[in-house]
Order: sequence, then structure tokens, then C-alpha cells
Amino acid sequence: MAKHRLGIVGFGGMGNWHRELIESGIENLEIAGMFDIKEERQEAARELGYRAYESLDALLADETVDMILISTPNDCHKPIAVKAMEAGKNVVSEKPVTLSSEDLLEMIDASKRTGKIFTVHQNRRWDEDFLTVKKLYDENALGDVFNIESRVHGSRGIPGDWRGKKEHGGGMMLDWGVHIIDQMLLMVKEKITSIYCKVNHVTNYEVDDGFTLILTFESGKTALLEVGTSNFIELPRWYMLGENGSVQIDDFLVHGKIVRITDWDKNDAVPVKTAAGLTKTMAPRTDDTIHTEPVVKVDSDIKDFYRNVMAAIEGREEQLIKHDELLRVMRVMETALRSAELNQVLPFEA
Amino acid sequence: MAKHRLGIVGFGGMGNWHRELIESGIENLEIAGMFDIKEERQEAARELGYRAYESLDALLADETVDMILISTPNDCHKPIAVKAMEAGKNVVSEKPVTLSSEDLLEMIDASKRTGKIFTVHQNRRWDEDFLTVKKLYDENALGDVFNIESRVHGSRGIPGDWRGKKEHGGGMMLDWGVHIIDQMLLMVKEKITSIYCKVNHVTNYEVDDGFTLILTFESGKTALLEVGTSNFIELPRWYMLGENGSVQIDDFLVHGKIVRITDWDKNDAVPVKTAAGLTKTMAPRTDDTIHTEPVVKVDSDIKDFYRNVMAAIEGREEQLIKHDELLRVMRVMETALRSAELNQVLPFEA
Repeated sequence: MAKHRLGIVGFGGMGNWHRELIESGIENLEIAGMFDIKEERQEAARELGYRAYESLDALLADETVDMILISTPNDCHKPIAVKAMEAGKNVVSEKPVTLSSEDLLEMIDASKRTGKIFTVHQNRRWDEDFLTVKKLYDENALGDVFNIESRVHGSRGIPGDWRGKKEHGGGMMLDWGVHIIDQMLLMVKEKITSIYCKVNHVTNYEVDDGFTLILTFESGKTALLEVGTSNFIELPRWYMLGENGSVQIDDFLVHGKIVRITDWDKNDAVPVKTAAGLTKTMAPRTDDTIHTEPVVKVDSDIKDFYRNVMAAIEGREEQLIKHDELLRVMRVMETALRSAELNQVLPFEA
Repeated sequence: MAKHRLGIVGFGGMGNWHRELIESGIENLEIAGMFDIKEERQEAARELGYRAYESLDALLADETVDMILISTPNDCHKPIAVKAMEAGKNVVSEKPVTLSSEDLLEMIDASKRTGKIFTVHQNRRWDEDFLTVKKLYDENALGDVFNIESRVHGSRGIPGDWRGKKEHGGGMMLDWGVHIIDQMLLMVKEKITSIYCKVNHVTNYEVDDGFTLILTFESGKTALLEVGTSNFIELPRWYMLGENGSVQIDDFLVHGKIVRITDWDKNDAVPVKTAAGLTKTMAPRTDDTIHTEPVVKVDSDIKDFYRNVMAAIEGREEQLIKHDELLRVMRVMETALRSAELNQVLPFEA
């Protein structure tokens, strides 16, 4: 079978990340070349031995190229994607795919009209912290789960580039929200009944530099999703509560633990004395009634993303990152930002 | 000066806690005796060498008694308090003082009518974890604070006594909410503009066995207050975020740390690689740009509660735990529970 050949549009940080990934070896996939509107990046591509196409049109005119990766700022994804599909290319876009669900619908329409694959690099579906907590959820390891918390905390504020500008699709909701919402919706396969969100403007007033989002699902289950960029101390990446136990995953490296109840009947609390009182309710359980174990990391291979895109192009597999999933995440983000603006709980899928 | 003499009504766990505190020595205060409707507790009082009054009336008729402590279940506080004040006694009630702000208003009216002191044992104002975080807040140690999180997590469910019954004032909002709301309102001296709350019913359907409450203040500052009784892993007791740093206090023993920025200009991020991507935004700051130090515990003496009550009786001090503060906390709790019922953000003091 002929190799799939990928053209990269936008050769900044993420464009180079894809280049490195593909060069580390993905069977049947090679890089045809790049196009970037900045000359220094064209030069960087040439120095690495690639063809730097003189224009987007030149790249799209290359009949040996069947796949386009779009790793430009967010506000440029749509016109490039539509143009590429119309030129007969299959398209992978970086995330967030667009700034609105209306724009996304246009891209989905272009895919239907042209019959070309259109998908988004929701790479954090392969993050091992997520896969580990998802496995515990799927296996019902904690009994009925009633609350899941997913946090990503940093302390650098918003990067000083286009990520701070509204017109370019900046803000943490679009940058990280898109990942942690996508992950949560892959895990909890229920209708969302309501959305409440508060956004932060600590270092940036134009776009959100963090948010706290509460989703309520049809079963009553809740999810708290939070991104912070002024958090000098990080809370755990994941915190999940079930009837029979809790799990905490500290970080991307999947340090963490599970604590499960082993003996419901033994409930003799030794009251905890604090400076000003005592509490039996909040006394820790004794070690003979619980079992603590480290979490077992689930490994992943991010190359499976490209393997699936190629299989979808060849008609051998369904594409993993689906149009309706992309649209749903986009609508959750839009509703969340609207909820924050109004300071109201908004119904969703109810 | 003659000693103040205290009669204890309700000699369960909290009644005994007060007994021990007073017996450990508070200048000018002594215990006159107890009354409990349960004979075994009357017997326990006698065995400890106290007078067990044959009835509430008998206790209130004792003219040597000028102070009454009410440490009965929550639904009995009001009739006993009103009766005691009308009998000329000063009253200390355990918390939550009543099940509704209407009942509380009746008690406050009785205090005004009789001229007797009426206050509530909001003992957790003396908890050292709270005093430590409050000192950092008051000193502006983190710069402008934009979010404060206060959590109390246990894993024993709701105690199997009256605390699980609605008619007796059970539920975690009334049991622990009353403390952590009171603490937060003492710290953030601003109007609350809105309230959103979700309650849990993991082990008990009649009352809440936990809740998450988001207060928004006039300045835009937010507070997240949470009580959980099915949390087998505890999140930190306090987490406070300011423009220039963060503080985390882990537990009642005031373990914890402060991380503050020392160099805003140096912001060279080494991107963090995860299994499926890289992030500069969430890369930890390098050690030469931040300063980490342990928190310095603020000590307290819970006996100051009784010292203040006696000074207030003697007209030497204003009572520390004020009627309008009690009423405000009660109204926050009522609004929070109503918010949870409606799943709506409710305005408050706006």
C-alpha cells in the first residue's frame, strides 16, 4: 500500500510536536512538507530537510499529499480545513477546532459534501492519567460513582501569545477546557442536565485565564472541571468518589492511590480533637476497615491517533474522534461561558 | 466577684466536652449541675459528683445558676433557650442554634425582651487551621485573594443518631456547614451576591450527607465550601489563591505550605511532556522564581469563648458571637439548601 503523506499547515510548537511524533515512526505515514506564513518557520522546515511549500495552495495542489494537519492558531482552522477538504484532502485539525459550534458545523458539512475525513487531534484522550481513572470508572471499582473532579493547575498565567486574545480563540476554556470536558464526556456516558460555570480573570481580562465548571448528569452524578493558571500549589489532577471508595490521581505521571472500604460494620470512631472541639463524624476510618493501594497506570500510545485516521481514510475503521462528540464538547463550552456571563445554572440536554 | 455558675442541659457528647473544658479550669466559672431527659445520663452526672437536677424547671429555679448551656439535639434549643432567658438565665446554645432563621429570631427577641445574654457556641472560630488561614488573608500575604476553598471530608457517612433525621435538625449543612460558613464570613467581610449549592445523598436520603457550596462576593471573589462524609481520601482543609501566591492547609493540625512568587519576569517554561502531548502553560514554575515555606500555626484558647460570655454578662465586653452573624449564617444555609433544591443560583444581599 502507498504511504499516506501529510502536509503540515502551521509549523509552531504543536506543528513540531506532530513532526517529531511522526518521525519517531508511524507505519505507513510520512511527512510531505510544511507551510507556515512566517518565513522563519519556513526556513526552520527547510533546515530540517523538509519541503517548505510556497503557499497553502501549492501544498493543496500536491497530489501526493492525502492528509493535512492544521496546527495554526484556532481562528484559522475553519477556512483552511474547508479549503483542504474541497481540494480533496483528509483533514486533521488541532484543537479547539473552532471558536463556535456554528463554525464547526460548516466544517462537518464540508466533510459530508466532499466525502473526506475531518477529525480533530483530541490528543488528551491518550493521556494516561485519564485512561487510568476511566478504567477504574468503567470497572466500577469504587461502586456507584457520585462525583468526579478533574483539575489542571498551573501558575504561569495565560501565555503571552494569541492564547490571550479573544479573536484568536484564546482563553483556558478553549485551550484546556476542550480536553478535560472531552475526557469527562467519554467517561460518563449520560445526558448532561445542567451546567454552571465561574470564570477567572486574574492575569487577563480579555479571555478567561481559568474556570470552575460543574456538570450535573441525568443520574444526579456531578463532575467538577477546573483549569487554573494562578495556582502556585496544585490540587490533584483527578479525584473520584464512589459509594465504596475514593481515588486520587495526583499528576500527569499517574501517581496516586485508591482507598476502598473493606468493613462497613466496624465503625468505631475515635473522636478527633481539634483546638476548639471534637468530631466523630470526621474521624478517619481505622486501617482495619479500609484498603489502600496505589493506582495502576494504564499505558497508551498516542500514535494510535494517526493509525486510526489512516484506517478511517481506508474505510477499515470508524474514526475515533467523531463529529457529534466534537460538537457536543463545543456546545458544553459555549453553554459554560454563557453560564459564567449570566451567573446562572443553564439547562443542557434536559 | 461571685463565681458564674453554669447548668448544662443535655449531657451527651458535647455536654461532656463542655464539662471537661470547664473542669480543666476557667477562672470564675463553675458547673452547678446537669439535666438530661435520659436517666443513664443523669446517673453519669451523679457518678461524676454533680447534681443531676430532677427537671429543667428545677435547674431554672436554682437562683445560684446564672448561665445555661444547651447541648441537646438541635430541634430542642429554642424552647429551652426561651424558657431559660425568661427565667432570668443567660444562655449559651450549641450549634446549629435552630433549624430556621424564624426560630432564631424568636430566640433573639427573647434576649432583647429579657435583657439576658444569648449566644451560640461557634467553637470553630477558635480552630487553629481557620485562624492561620485568616491571619494570612488579613495580612494580604498572597496579594489580592480571588478564591478560597474550605473543605471538611470524612468517610463515615452521617452518624446514625438524630443527625440523620430532618425533624431533629440533622444533615451536614446544619452540622458542619454552620461552622465553615461562619468562618468564611468572618474572614471575607463583603456582601455575598449569589449562592449555588449541590447536596449529596450518598448514605442518607432524608438529610444532606454532604454539600458543595459556591459563594460569590461583591468584589467577584469566590469561596467554595464543601462537606463530605463519603470521602475515603481527604482533599486539603484549606486552599486559598491570591494573585501572588497560594496557601494549602492540609488538616486540623495545620500542616501545610505557602508558595509565593518572587520573580514575575523570569517565566521560561520547560514544557511538560505527558503521554499524549506537551504543555508549557501547565509547566511548574522553576524554583528560582518562587518561595515555599511552611505555614506558621496561630494558637488559640477555646476558653476565651466562656471568658467572653462572662465578660458580656458583666457588661465589660461585647459578646463575640453576635446575633446578626448567627442570623446571616442561618440565612446562607437556608438559601443554599433552597438553591440545591431548585438547582439554581440564588441572589443574596444583592
